[in-house]
Amino acid sequence: MKVLLAQELTKVNSDVAAGNRRRLASLGVAMVNIIGSPGAGKTKLLEATLSLMAGTIRTGVIEGDVWTSRDGQRIAACGIPVVQLNTQGACHLDAAMVSSALDNLNLTGLDLVAVENVGNLVCPASFDLGETRRVVVLSTAEGDDKPGKYPAVFRGAHAIVVSKVDLIGHTDFRLESFERDLRLVNRTAALFPVSARNGTGLDPWVHWLCGVAKSGRRQSVSQRGR
Amino acid sequence: MKVLLAQELTKVNSDVAAGNRRRLASLGVAMVNIIGSPGAGKTKLLEATLSLMAGTIRTGVIEGDVWTSRDGQRIAACGIPVVQLNTQGACHLDAAMVSSALDNLNLTGLDLVAVENVGNLVCPASFDLGETRRVVVLSTAEGDDKPGKYPAVFRGAHAIVVSKVDLIGHTDFRLESFERDLRLVNRTAALFPVSARNGTGLDPWVHWLCGVAKSGRRQSVSQRGR
Repeated sequence: MKVLLAQELTKVNSDVAAGNRRRLASLGVAMVNIIGSPGAGKTKLLEATLSLMAGTIRTGVIEGDVWTSRDGQRIAACGIPVVQLNTQGACHLDAAMVSSALDNLNLTGLDLVAVENVGNLVCPASFDLGETRRVVVLSTAEGDDKPGKYPAVFRGAHAIVVSKVDLIGHTDFRLESFERDLRLVNRTAALFPVSARNGTGLDPWVHWLCGVAKSGRRQSVSQRGR
Repeated sequence: MKVLLAQELTKVNSDVAAGNRRRLASLGVAMVNIIGSPGAGKTKLLEATLSLMAGTIRTGVIEGDVWTSRDGQRIAACGIPVVQLNTQGACHLDAAMVSSALDNLNLTGLDLVAVENVGNLVCPASFDLGETRRVVVLSTAEGDDKPGKYPAVFRGAHAIVVSKVDLIGHTDFRLESFERDLRLVNRTAALFPVSARNGTGLDPWVHWLCGVAKSGRRQSVSQRGR
């Protein structure tokens, strides 16, 4: 009997993630892995973002949920190609699940794949999906003390979206305290305070995401040129 | 080499949980396992609750966090005995961790142990800690669609605290929609809409919790009587 230990299983995931990354790069498609707690506002952010990028960036979405297709249905209603992944109990997406989902998207017609991970600020941090960039979404209602309490997920992020800034005046959230705590674990991540509800701060976030999508395309062209 | 499979490990946890439950019952101490996402307001709810129960119910707290003692320090500042459990990466508490924490509380001087689980709405659902009652805390900022999306944790709860109802007017949260979704997976759990910030709804919740603590004491007396 072959016994796979945790370290080996992590290596299996890393290998599959590397395969996803090569596959996407060869097609000039970028992928973002969006991680946050239940109710951080990941789907709402995607809805607002997709509407602003329409006509510029061709996006496909992979929706990760424990159960239900509710989020997938919301994205499909935006006219966006979407694959719903139900983990049926599991607390995170892994690279193999995403590989299957990629099989069900027409990648040659896309610039960007946005993966909405399962609502969880802990477990998804340990699983590389083969993404180009990793984004953490945290709402102002969750409190400004989270980077120190959940350092793994913040340490691994290229961008942090502080969502629901329209609520900030009704909470104890202080953006300066949050940023101070964040910079202890991550000095370089881009920081975007936004409200998907009233549109505040969406432009710089969308600009950053379009840059990620275009860099995927440039990379593919230069690979083909070699 | 002995290989422990997932099912056996779950049984090990169940056995340790049963031990915790017997130990607490013999001393007439009740235990609540409080589960919710990061930022659901679990610590804030505990602070407000402990202050209202002071002088009536002698409570000890076990604080579960991935890293940091921030929540433990907040509870200790209320003059409450507290043991901080740092899981150092793990996404949930298990019965063995709680057993160690119970060793560090003076149980004969307590009526109730409140366990604040790691911020996570998925993984803690699968781990019995030996609690008398299980409570899920969800903030109005997280959205009213969560019972269907995270059914395991809602199915296993004896009480649901909908926190941050002071924010409800600034969100899309509808209490009726939430309750409709909840009742599809859990027909009996008590439901407490509260704001720990302004005190709304705390009295019925505290009344329920005092009832749990007192039932633990009665159970112990009748056990001794037998």
